[in-house]
Amino acid sequence: MQIKLFGTIILLSGSLFMLPAQEAKDPDVFRSVFNEALTSYEAYHNLEWLCKNTKGRIGGRPQAAAAVEFTRQVMEKIGLDSVWLQSVMVKSWDRGEPEKARIISSRFGTMEVPSCALGWSVGTGPDGLSGSVVEVKSAADWKNITRPEVQGRIVFFNQPMNATHLGTFSAYGEAVWQRTNGPAEAARLGAAAVVVRSMTIEIDDFPHTGVTRAAEGVRSVPAIAISTRAAETLSQWLKGDPSLNFYFRTTCEEGPEVPSFNVIGEIRGSEYPNEYITVGGHLDAWDIAEGAHDDGGGCIQSIEMLRLFRTCGIRPRHSIRAVMFMDEEVAQRGGLAYAREASEKGEKHIAALESDRGVFFPQFLGIIGNEAQMERAAEWQPLFDPYRIRLNRGGGGADIGPLKTFYPDILFMGIIPDDSRYFRYHHAASDTFEMVDRREMQMGAAGIACLVYLVDKYGL
Amino acid sequence: MQIKLFGTIILLSGSLFMLPAQEAKDPDVFRSVFNEALTSYEAYHNLEWLCKNTKGRIGGRPQAAAAVEFTRQVMEKIGLDSVWLQSVMVKSWDRGEPEKARIISSRFGTMEVPSCALGWSVGTGPDGLSGSVVEVKSAADWKNITRPEVQGRIVFFNQPMNATHLGTFSAYGEAVWQRTNGPAEAARLGAAAVVVRSMTIEIDDFPHTGVTRAAEGVRSVPAIAISTRAAETLSQWLKGDPSLNFYFRTTCEEGPEVPSFNVIGEIRGSEYPNEYITVGGHLDAWDIAEGAHDDGGGCIQSIEMLRLFRTCGIRPRHSIRAVMFMDEEVAQRGGLAYAREASEKGEKHIAALESDRGVFFPQFLGIIGNEAQMERAAEWQPLFDPYRIRLNRGGGGADIGPLKTFYPDILFMGIIPDDSRYFRYHHAASDTFEMVDRREMQMGAAGIACLVYLVDKYGL
Repeated sequence: MQIKLFGTIILLSGSLFMLPAQEAKDPDVFRSVFNEALTSYEAYHNLEWLCKNTKGRIGGRPQAAAAVEFTRQVMEKIGLDSVWLQSVMVKSWDRGEPEKARIISSRFGTMEVPSCALGWSVGTGPDGLSGSVVEVKSAADWKNITRPEVQGRIVFFNQPMNATHLGTFSAYGEAVWQRTNGPAEAARLGAAAVVVRSMTIEIDDFPHTGVTRAAEGVRSVPAIAISTRAAETLSQWLKGDPSLNFYFRTTCEEGPEVPSFNVIGEIRGSEYPNEYITVGGHLDAWDIAEGAHDDGGGCIQSIEMLRLFRTCGIRPRHSIRAVMFMDEEVAQRGGLAYAREASEKGEKHIAALESDRGVFFPQFLGIIGNEAQMERAAEWQPLFDPYRIRLNRGGGGADIGPLKTFYPDILFMGIIPDDSRYFRYHHAASDTFEMVDRREMQMGAAGIACLVYLVDKYGL
Repeated sequence: MQIKLFGTIILLSGSLFMLPAQEAKDPDVFRSVFNEALTSYEAYHNLEWLCKNTKGRIGGRPQAAAAVEFTRQVMEKIGLDSVWLQSVMVKSWDRGEPEKARIISSRFGTMEVPSCALGWSVGTGPDGLSGSVVEVKSAADWKNITRPEVQGRIVFFNQPMNATHLGTFSAYGEAVWQRTNGPAEAARLGAAAVVVRSMTIEIDDFPHTGVTRAAEGVRSVPAIAISTRAAETLSQWLKGDPSLNFYFRTTCEEGPEVPSFNVIGEIRGSEYPNEYITVGGHLDAWDIAEGAHDDGGGCIQSIEMLRLFRTCGIRPRHSIRAVMFMDEEVAQRGGLAYAREASEKGEKHIAALESDRGVFFPQFLGIIGNEAQMERAAEWQPLFDPYRIRLNRGGGGADIGPLKTFYPDILFMGIIPDDSRYFRYHHAASDTFEMVDRREMQMGAAGIACLVYLVDKYGL
């Protein structure tokens, strides 16, 4: 490397021309960060504790409070410059008793199916409800449906996630309208209730929950997700018995607004202490899940990034924060509170990264920059090559999104792991600690730490 | 694409110059192959059957015979041009009763530890054996060890796989001498028995077996693997109580040579029926494992490749075979028999690919070519880009290796999936069907099919 040979010249020229995008010691820093990550079990054990002791930590529940306290303590222990809680009021909702759902066909018999109420849906009441079923197989079908077809019936949204999409998040984005907007739209047409095929590609037995949105001026109707296998069965049975009945019972209900917190840990910048780089995940997780991939793992990676900075002796120029955001799954109140308070305090936020796509092998680290920034970032690729991580365009996230309002020039970054498996676990009881691979998660944490190290050191 | 505009000219020039490395329709062929793979459950269900009904199918056992018959039937059903069994004589070995192993310390107490006899090791006999322990932490330590330190004692090979290696197969390659050669070397120095730290990076409770080699003229000694967590404990306890005892009991023994089979399925080439491209995995799996990733998945991917050719209407110019090799785990008799018979029959083998690194996301497809071939293969990269698969140098394998003896010019290819998780499952009871992701396996099968499609069509 020329830098080694002409170190002084490069240093002198640094102020005249552009700073070099890398230095000779950068590969060593990378190596020390990855070595530490790959040999440490600290983050992995913390994730285990979080998953096993705060399962179902949706905002407002005691489990969420336990998760706040646990991550606060974890960050205290790694010796940061400051760790604190940031107040966030969140909406609360309770699932009530375990759901019941069954298909009742005079031709095929009766079958109980795995189900769960959609988040923020209303309950059926203790007697449950039943009705005939109108199946909707695509958005196009739904657009053409008429009120008489729907009135008083159960709408069954059964558009599968498209398995041939090479990005599973695209498949999700295309299908998730059924869960988020389907129930309110069906209610507007007079439906009695809604059943949604779970948002997952694989055919299995897990119902996947997730938030559904009420529509202004429309009385909400009860809405559940059923497993993909149950959806396949219901669809099959409907072919042979179009007048079959579906019964389900949910006792969920909305509660009051309750206080909760974001948890923030910080290493103060040595040169620009009031300029911030934020790395975060969301601490809340669906009430039926351990929230390992969504998104306990992202929180733990954010903390691990700070621990890697500390352990590897990296002193950042800017202040670096790990933020456990609250309420991502419902109304993103945590992200809003964080951005608003940052602005009110006069902080300058220069970059932010969110890890909320599971903690699988980090195929890509993302940057959303202009052309010059992307070109400059491309010079860093050789540093990541030994680790099989590619730099690519991409990033952002629901929790860091609000920062853009207050800091239009903020650089959004991201981590984009292999997404093959993500939706098997997303919002379901299958999202357990056991589904996380320590090595994959740690490769991601190290990758994030190294990207933040570069952005902190050289800017973009 | 110019090819569309000047189709005739290109066709004419094909014989004068080099054939084009791709045609306009190739992306469509790729798309149809991946679409079919991503939406089909056939291979996945076949893998489930294989794992759940032929668990422990090490060569010579009835489970191996059941696996032979099952994969034969599966290939018959997909309508190949021919499916047949190829005789292979294999050595047999029986684990006997479940192993027992414990650490006995006057200071720390007694602890049972998870263990398994190494493949082809000799048993302790019904009374078991016990002795004091000499711990070996590295190859360098072992080189300097003396006979008096070892004589009559139990040698405990405890060099961990290096977690900081970015390729886990490198970490395995560096540590596996302890299992393959350690027991024979220890026996030569007069050791009474050998305990090996399991060959896996993670700290967990699964013992991992694998073959150990006897040395000419040395009486073999009993040898077991213990889980990595047990190895950590044993090492810790030895620090505080160097004179502790270790007890274990194994009743394994070698049996006679027994007949078994490779299973071969073939689509006959339309232009060069006597020129072959072989894709294979090994059908045998360790007696304690379902053999999902090692290597039921590789077998099923090989069959799936042929099914994808059939289903997508690809008529290959050369004959394409899927081969389930027998006896990879022990003496690679299946691979030898296949190569020898090919040569005897006057077959011309032009290329071969082995899938035996787990069926995780296919990060790379490999080719071991000369410079010109690698450059030519690089022209195919854009076809793989949408699928996030990279072409790289690499490939070969234990079963296809012998083909090189008879066909020095054969092109070796490979599939190199993400290796983060592989050694958690390798040769252990943790290698179950549930650890396989359908989508990851199918991405691999489609990738293999597309690479074979290109090599068949354009050569290299």
